[in-house]
Amino acid sequence: MSTQKLKVAIVGASGFTGSELARLLLNHEGVSIEMITSESHVGKPFSDLHPQFVDRLDIPLVSAEEVSNKNLDVIYLALPHGVSMDFVAKWKDSGAKIIDLSGDFRLSTKEVYEEWYNKKHSYPEGFATAVYGLPELFADKIKSASLVANPGCYPTASILSMAPLFAKQLVEEKSLIIDAKSGLTGAGIKASATTHFSNVNENFKAYGIAGHRHTIEIEEQLGGLAGSQTAVQFTPHLLPVDRGILVTAYAKIKGEMNQAKLTEIYRDFYQDKPFVRLRNQAPGIKDVRGSHFCDVFPVWDARTERVIVISVIDNLLKGAASQAVHNMNLMFGLSEAEGLNQVPLKP
Amino acid sequence: MSTQKLKVAIVGASGFTGSELARLLLNHEGVSIEMITSESHVGKPFSDLHPQFVDRLDIPLVSAEEVSNKNLDVIYLALPHGVSMDFVAKWKDSGAKIIDLSGDFRLSTKEVYEEWYNKKHSYPEGFATAVYGLPELFADKIKSASLVANPGCYPTASILSMAPLFAKQLVEEKSLIIDAKSGLTGAGIKASATTHFSNVNENFKAYGIAGHRHTIEIEEQLGGLAGSQTAVQFTPHLLPVDRGILVTAYAKIKGEMNQAKLTEIYRDFYQDKPFVRLRNQAPGIKDVRGSHFCDVFPVWDARTERVIVISVIDNLLKGAASQAVHNMNLMFGLSEAEGLNQVPLKP
Amino acid sequence: MSTQKLKVAIVGASGFTGSELARLLLNHEGVSIEMITSESHVGKPFSDLHPQFVDRLDIPLVSAEEVSNKNLDVIYLALPHGVSMDFVAKWKDSGAKIIDLSGDFRLSTKEVYEEWYNKKHSYPEGFATAVYGLPELFADKIKSASLVANPGCYPTASILSMAPLFAKQLVEEKSLIIDAKSGLTGAGIKASATTHFSNVNENFKAYGIAGHRHTIEIEEQLGGLAGSQTAVQFTPHLLPVDRGILVTAYAKIKGEMNQAKLTEIYRDFYQDKPFVRLRNQAPGIKDVRGSHFCDVFPVWDARTERVIVISVIDNLLKGAASQAVHNMNLMFGLSEAEGLNQVPLKP
Amino acid sequence: MSTQKLKVAIVGASGFTGSELARLLLNHEGVSIEMITSESHVGKPFSDLHPQFVDRLDIPLVSAEEVSNKNLDVIYLALPHGVSMDFVAKWKDSGAKIIDLSGDFRLSTKEVYEEWYNKKHSYPEGFATAVYGLPELFADKIKSASLVANPGCYPTASILSMAPLFAKQLVEEKSLIIDAKSGLTGAGIKASATTHFSNVNENFKAYGIAGHRHTIEIEEQLGGLAGSQTAVQFTPHLLPVDRGILVTAYAKIKGEMNQAKLTEIYRDFYQDKPFVRLRNQAPGIKDVRGSHFCDVFPVWDARTERVIVISVIDNLLKGAASQAVHNMNLMFGLSEAEGLNQVPLKP
Repeated sequence: MSTQKLKVAIVGASGFTGSELARLLLNHEGVSIEMITSESHVGKPFSDLHPQFVDRLDIPLVSAEEVSNKNLDVIYLALPHGVSMDFVAKWKDSGAKIIDLSGDFRLSTKEVYEEWYNKKHSYPEGFATAVYGLPELFADKIKSASLVANPGCYPTASILSMAPLFAKQLVEEKSLIIDAKSGLTGAGIKASATTHFSNVNENFKAYGIAGHRHTIEIEEQLGGLAGSQTAVQFTPHLLPVDRGILVTAYAKIKGEMNQAKLTEIYRDFYQDKPFVRLRNQAPGIKDVRGSHFCDVFPVWDARTERVIVISVIDNLLKGAASQAVHNMNLMFGLSEAEGLNQVPLKP
Repeated sequence: MSTQKLKVAIVGASGFTGSELARLLLNHEGVSIEMITSESHVGKPFSDLHPQFVDRLDIPLVSAEEVSNKNLDVIYLALPHGVSMDFVAKWKDSGAKIIDLSGDFRLSTKEVYEEWYNKKHSYPEGFATAVYGLPELFADKIKSASLVANPGCYPTASILSMAPLFAKQLVEEKSLIIDAKSGLTGAGIKASATTHFSNVNENFKAYGIAGHRHTIEIEEQLGGLAGSQTAVQFTPHLLPVDRGILVTAYAKIKGEMNQAKLTEIYRDFYQDKPFVRLRNQAPGIKDVRGSHFCDVFPVWDARTERVIVISVIDNLLKGAASQAVHNMNLMFGLSEAEGLNQVPLKP
Repeated sequence: MSTQKLKVAIVGASGFTGSELARLLLNHEGVSIEMITSESHVGKPFSDLHPQFVDRLDIPLVSAEEVSNKNLDVIYLALPHGVSMDFVAKWKDSGAKIIDLSGDFRLSTKEVYEEWYNKKHSYPEGFATAVYGLPELFADKIKSASLVANPGCYPTASILSMAPLFAKQLVEEKSLIIDAKSGLTGAGIKASATTHFSNVNENFKAYGIAGHRHTIEIEEQLGGLAGSQTAVQFTPHLLPVDRGILVTAYAKIKGEMNQAKLTEIYRDFYQDKPFVRLRNQAPGIKDVRGSHFCDVFPVWDARTERVIVISVIDNLLKGAASQAVHNMNLMFGLSEAEGLNQVPLKP
Repeated sequence: MSTQKLKVAIVGASGFTGSELARLLLNHEGVSIEMITSESHVGKPFSDLHPQFVDRLDIPLVSAEEVSNKNLDVIYLALPHGVSMDFVAKWKDSGAKIIDLSGDFRLSTKEVYEEWYNKKHSYPEGFATAVYGLPELFADKIKSASLVANPGCYPTASILSMAPLFAKQLVEEKSLIIDAKSGLTGAGIKASATTHFSNVNENFKAYGIAGHRHTIEIEEQLGGLAGSQTAVQFTPHLLPVDRGILVTAYAKIKGEMNQAKLTEIYRDFYQDKPFVRLRNQAPGIKDVRGSHFCDVFPVWDARTERVIVISVIDNLLKGAASQAVHNMNLMFGLSEAEGLNQVPLKP
């Protein structure tokens, strides 16, 4: 650890991602939180928005305008998609590295983005420099990136569930189905009928059937690994819990397969990846809650000749904030695991 | 309604199915609950086991031995599989019709049963007379049955999600994947690590991957509808809620399909089935909680050329107790909907 | 049951109380739902707002203006306080009896109302005719009332927990503390930070400490029973559940007391009240969920010389909708229990 | 931090307290976990019992017999009451300091223990040496203790809610009522009807009314602070959440009081106590989840002339495991906050 701490800004304080970033960075020994921004709450203590921080992080919120006044090393953008892109454009030459937690730079091109997000992209030049920030796949590129597009929560769990098979080009074309289930925090902090307690509690439903925009993100990444285009059937569902994503992925396999071989493929692929845990029984989302782990459990069903893989993450952490910190560690040559040693909070 | 009430016994008082049967039958105008049995609680008021019944149903529990002393019309067996079969054998000539809520007579043969339940069957003759009690498919047979095998909870939701397509032989062989999610009551009333609050609450996990015994029940019924053997990939998951099953079914289709045609197929198939509701948006499990409804929502994904169907039921009702009452109504020529008019309890 | 059904209107369709009224009245044999109003959803089917009613109650919503065009027997006002009063004034001579589920006519006078609700009252004349609709205490008055003020949810559970002791003037002045806990539906259907799933789930907090407006409603009613002014310490808390109120009431007693005597007092007071169940163990809110029951459990603590009473209700039913139906039954000479025979939904 | 790490043993691996201790100690820089014991799981990896620890703490469990073979500095006893006492007797001269998380040495004498725990005490000599491990009150004594009795979860929240007033002898005799609510983990990891999901979820109930054994622990500690015997009315309730205790305490005050004065008393009392946060609005249990904080919110109700204090803790942390670590830090001269810097996990 160098004695010089990284100076970071968190842009966008009001959401869950912003508060989780603050929580992680506060206990990260290589970092100093220089500022947190919120246009609608300028001057208020951060802990007014998130009372869990009382006495731990009471610094006043500032406007994003203040970013240019500080000599920052890292800027975290914890903003909605469609908003981030303007800030990336504005700060791209500020000297700070940018980690964008929105969807604005996760896809390959402006055209793909505009089709799936149904929105104009104001800074298409960014696609050329942005690195997709999934450390298990792209650590080398991330190390030298100045702009990292932090992956979506569903794509993180989905890609990690299937990457070992796609990297070996073992998956039959068009056979992949991802049935995904997420806790409510994935829907964000905004109050709406969707997030009303009585619509979520004791309930469970699918949404975005046949059209969710994380579909294309998964398709591009898995297709990239395999070196060929791939179609994914992706169906998200809303769980009555705060945190956690569980993916159940189904795929047909090219060639012979058995359980031992399958396990071996996953073990090889993830052997030096400290935050992916190959499990020998079906993991639950609570096994990783509050941590940076992704637990993966691959099963071969000889009867149906299909692979079924379960993967679980904490959507706010491995699916957002801790992944962003992991990326920062790589970008600045820190120890990969710095600030990410939390044991899951269970029960 | 005839003035003569049906005399019924509920055998097996301690579980959720027994108490739900009692709840429904208590307000069913064509029925008189003559006795409820429990070997381990003989003499105790029923409401001691289930305090929601205080002042409503305080009758003392009796031994199953007492069944032969009453002139019963219907015997409901709310017992674990492997136990029911002996009672069916014992009471088959008692003059009462039997509705068995266990899995003992749901499958086609002794051989299939013994393979999937890993247990000897003591009354294989029952398979010849037992009728599979899914009223939407087999109302005619149920009307004249003396032994009804009440369907499993997962199979009910699964079969109803896909029956219209299988009946028309539209589903591509081996393409069906059923990703199912159930509330905790599906695991029964027995205290164990599985049912401990802190293992369920804020958690979600898959179980029985590639081997759950409801798989064969679904395969036999859908295969029967199509007139050909069918393989189903079935994966159940445990939801942190009390009640409800949601099935997400994926299938490839033979021939041309579009959304209008798909909707039409389902509308036709279920047009005179009062308890299946064809929905025009994705239903949640709470939309049917506490009711006998099965809500179904079929979607055609032109991009992936796949049908996705969501179906939801209350596992303790349409998946068990209210289905049993529906079967009784049919078996005795009562109005199909008698005692089953509950509007779902939401929120 | 007369062959002539009562014609009822539900004014205010969008909230939980409106939908629960519809659910109960739909299965009430003495009632015909003539109309349901919603100013913001005119023309939409009722089941669009509350999908649990699909195929059961799809009638189009109308404007409250339509009320005067029907020859109604009963008007249920399921409106926010401050809104109801204008409709009561408008329809007081319409020939229909009015059951108001808001707080507008629950208190004794305009002055008290304006102090605790911090709002002008536009129809103070109503206080003279309104009857407080708690059937266990005021059945006789309710029978002849043309305007019933349906009690608040907390007051219902609170008053029933202590009425037997206040009616005998046994409670020491200023000693009553009511620590109350309610499910989230008590906060209404409006989306806000308060009702956001992630603020409620796995959380628990007090609110309205030392100033909640249900305090005065409880004080007036218990004071009225005792024939003297009484001060109540009332603290509500928010439970992470949909439904249910549990009250823990603490009081000092004048004179000698013991458990047998205490139980006897409660048994006498509630002996002919079919919906109050005197329990012999501590009830949970799930013991009454989905029903019209209030379960009461009084305990004498000889060590501290204090009475502790637990009472539980379903806040949307005995605390609102089913209480309103009970009042209607009394007002029109129907059987007291008509439409209210639901066994609690547990689990 | 000295370079020499403290060698610790955790005796009792299977429960929630054991796993939470392991979680905290694993990231405590001054500690080395030498061994974890479990008689029923000897040889199994710790992570088999608690899968959240996979890849983080897989050491094999050993028998408690092994304790004498290691040169330990600290022994944590995470055992049921009635079991701990024998181990304390056995290891009192082992050279290791003992932190007992059971109730065996929390009370003043053998006689009091045997009355409230209804059980013989096998090592009454321990009462003379045991120090009550509530750091906010007894830091000095804890520093030199060789046996610390870690406080109960309810007593921790209860005592901290009222200590400032009792220390000033401001509370009227016999006026204190503590209405407490706890998450389910307080009931332990054992599977039973009490901990079955469907009895807890969507439910809420009181238990141990007028006789819970934490009553006497609170009475002794608050009485000790005030220098006079005190009677407490204590009623615990079971919340449908995993973690958290909220206490609502009511008391009459001697002499004049107002809000400013009340706040000042609490501010003074807790000004140098880093883990008690004086809040300016009602805290929820989620504001402290996963942390060592106790949040306190005192209110003066001028209308009823009563003080109402809300306090919240995480029952497994400030109510058990983190309190034990805090005690260890004090006993060994480490920084008070070492290993306890977690920001609450919210949402």
